[in-house]
Amino acid sequence: MKFKANIDIMPLEALLDPQGKAVSQSMGNVGLSEITNVRIGKHITLFVEADSKDVASIKVDEACKKLLANQIMESYSFELEEA
Amino acid sequence: MKFKANIDIMPLEALLDPQGKAVSQSMGNVGLSEITNVRIGKHITLFVEADSKDVASIKVDEACKKLLANQIMESYSFELEEA
Repeated sequence: MKFKANIDIMPLEALLDPQGKAVSQSMGNVGLSEITNVRIGKHITLFVEADSKDVASIKVDEACKKLLANQIMESYSFELEEA
Repeated sequence: MKFKANIDIMPLEALLDPQGKAVSQSMGNVGLSEITNVRIGKHITLFVEADSKDVASIKVDEACKKLLANQIMESYSFELEEA
């Protein structure tokens, strides 16, 4: 079976997010001062071939830990759907 | 009222995603060859102050168009929740 994973990787709440901060400040310059607290992370989609959703979930978790997310600075979450 | 927006910005399907392609190839090297077709975009969270969800939605759409997404190369989607 093939599953599609939607992964969100965000900078940890405790850390500064300089890119997000710069964008927050720019919102005022384009007339959108009601937008605040912008935080910018990564959204990753991928396909995984696995026998079951549980196995797919383990594989995606492993991919996040080994390659996609830097757990010192980032947190990740993901959802799986059958593709 | 304050709303939280979860925005996903992804490279258009028709375009190459070199970063995603490099990560797809690396999956084999860490023993995860069942993972394919990795695509990497941005996940952005922000807060918006607005009188209603509809107004908030218009503001976030404007922010995506003006600042966050490059519509020539990227597509965006978002969800709003009351914060």
